[in-house]
Amino acid sequence: MGDERIKGKVREAVQTGAQTKVQTGAQSLSFVNAPFLSCAASVTGKKEGEGPLGRLFDHVSGDDLFGENTWEAAESAMQKLACSLTLQKAGRKASEIRYLFGGDLLRQGTATSQGVEGFDIPMFGLYGACSTAGEALALAAMSVAAGYGERMLAVTSSHFGSAEKEFRFPLGYANQRPLSAHWTVTGSGAFLVTAGAEQSANIPGDAGTGQSAAMPGQVKISGVTVGKIVDFGLKDSQNMGACMAPAACDTILQNFRDFGRGPEDYTRIITGDLGHIGQSILFDLMQDNGYDIRGNHLDCGMLIFDQETQDTHSGGSGCGCAAVTLASYIYPKLRNGEWERVLFVPTGALLSTVIYNEGASVPGIAHAIILEHAAPGR
Amino acid sequence: MGDERIKGKVREAVQTGAQTKVQTGAQSLSFVNAPFLSCAASVTGKKEGEGPLGRLFDHVSGDDLFGENTWEAAESAMQKLACSLTLQKAGRKASEIRYLFGGDLLRQGTATSQGVEGFDIPMFGLYGACSTAGEALALAAMSVAAGYGERMLAVTSSHFGSAEKEFRFPLGYANQRPLSAHWTVTGSGAFLVTAGAEQSANIPGDAGTGQSAAMPGQVKISGVTVGKIVDFGLKDSQNMGACMAPAACDTILQNFRDFGRGPEDYTRIITGDLGHIGQSILFDLMQDNGYDIRGNHLDCGMLIFDQETQDTHSGGSGCGCAAVTLASYIYPKLRNGEWERVLFVPTGALLSTVIYNEGASVPGIAHAIILEHAAPGR
Repeated sequence: MGDERIKGKVREAVQTGAQTKVQTGAQSLSFVNAPFLSCAASVTGKKEGEGPLGRLFDHVSGDDLFGENTWEAAESAMQKLACSLTLQKAGRKASEIRYLFGGDLLRQGTATSQGVEGFDIPMFGLYGACSTAGEALALAAMSVAAGYGERMLAVTSSHFGSAEKEFRFPLGYANQRPLSAHWTVTGSGAFLVTAGAEQSANIPGDAGTGQSAAMPGQVKISGVTVGKIVDFGLKDSQNMGACMAPAACDTILQNFRDFGRGPEDYTRIITGDLGHIGQSILFDLMQDNGYDIRGNHLDCGMLIFDQETQDTHSGGSGCGCAAVTLASYIYPKLRNGEWERVLFVPTGALLSTVIYNEGASVPGIAHAIILEHAAPGR
Repeated sequence: MGDERIKGKVREAVQTGAQTKVQTGAQSLSFVNAPFLSCAASVTGKKEGEGPLGRLFDHVSGDDLFGENTWEAAESAMQKLACSLTLQKAGRKASEIRYLFGGDLLRQGTATSQGVEGFDIPMFGLYGACSTAGEALALAAMSVAAGYGERMLAVTSSHFGSAEKEFRFPLGYANQRPLSAHWTVTGSGAFLVTAGAEQSANIPGDAGTGQSAAMPGQVKISGVTVGKIVDFGLKDSQNMGACMAPAACDTILQNFRDFGRGPEDYTRIITGDLGHIGQSILFDLMQDNGYDIRGNHLDCGMLIFDQETQDTHSGGSGCGCAAVTLASYIYPKLRNGEWERVLFVPTGALLSTVIYNEGASVPGIAHAIILEHAAPGR
């Protein structure tokens, strides 16, 4: 029985691991029949729309409440809209989606529960802090690659108003933010993961210049490296980059080991929301392990805001940060072949105000998703 | 590509669905090479140890703080202990576990993050309220059945002290509890899901009469039905049974449809924590749909406490409730063949205090796991 399993179609990574002397403890999967990232959509608030990626988002709201009465309901509305836009672009109905994998930063994942309940799709609620976009894409890809369904939806969100209230201070307190703090992205990204290549179109009138039907290629999720919890004992909830950088380093190194790769094998290595401080720590940690990723590293939290003019300090963060940056900026470049292979590494700080106030440290986690350009028809 | 997928080894449920006219929207998976639930362990607090299942638990603590300073740290300690006991019983090291699927009821899943970080196992954090035991077992079984690893660990927990603080009032407030309220179980259950049949032994000196090496059989996870969010608009956080019963009904009915089964096909149908009130609603809802499950329904929340003497009102609840009841009571009966096939349906109320205080309703979700006795050697 055991041996039979090893012959399974998605254990290539274990075999890769064996070649590179990583057997037990190897954390990666390589999909022989890699699923496609067929469609993506991004929804953001006003400030994100004013940032460097603003014109790439599918929907930028002028109203950060999205017509609702609370930040929490606004976040749910964003998730709902991001899923709707993804389905609309892909020309699919919710009933054609087998399972949904979703999460947010709010306690008990309520933005997701309230946001997706109307779609009537069987769902798995996830929590990986800001790494949840990676967790959702990993599980969606694993489920599609295993043949558990033709189409899965992955969605995550965060909201500046709801997250500040949840993790630090309600906006009305007008507390001063240290320079090491991040600015939680108000945004939601949704992704359609499919067994076969599927077309998707821009919606007439939308703002995105992204993934149109005219694009020549496809994007495959060729593998994943599932992260471990890494805890360096840091306790500062206003310096999330430092809490997450060790986890990002751990997962990237593991990905290199499992696949026998190095930085040169990826067009870009893109972390979720380490920000300026986290990035410098990551560079140092990688250097200590013999790798220089300065040449091809990007961070979604640094891409989404203009640090000079937008007063966002260390950078953007939140479940929505990596998700909308992937949907709007990374995905189109992979789709049209400008980038060949990206290691997408959303990073999460596993914090709550309760354990923070009780003096516990903030462990980090990061999941890596390997995204590859695929020529049309492949 | 699409057709190729449908021939995948784990799509039998879709085919079953097709026979019974449920194609799109079918929510179930049936594993052709069903994974084994090879080992289980339960850890509880004092009150649970005094209840009807008390002598079956592997570890009952006399100290509900488990030697820690906070309820949250105590909950983490329980998860750690439940995982350790499972590994010890199975004779496995943490490094032999491919992935861990875990969750709890605390905001941002901190009991799990803090509880499992020491094992150094790649992990997926989950949130499905009290349905998380089902979600974790479903994803662990899906991952093993797909060949993503030989062994996965699923773990969930809840703690009366941390949950009352998180959802209602800190214990020090000594608030009065309505009769419809549940009593959150202080407990954690951990499960080893494996590709092949594996032996597990009781630990010398433990309290359990459960899954010893002398037991004649094995337990297989033959299928899952992934739940949808079901929202009947109820808003009472002190009546969780009513919020969850519609979700339980929806998932059980879908399971019947997807597999062409009825109540008579299951030795027992066991919900997570509907309690006395939720059970009566479930019976009515099932009756409305033409099914009488009175003869073979059990509820973990009703099994774990003695309503007469333990002052637990509607019954036990929490992520730990279904988990420790499965580990201590249900699993041994399946293992020794006393029960042939059980539909295990952990139920969750997707509540947070934030959205509760904002007047939102409490949606429910339930995931169903089909557990079957397997003769030795099968």
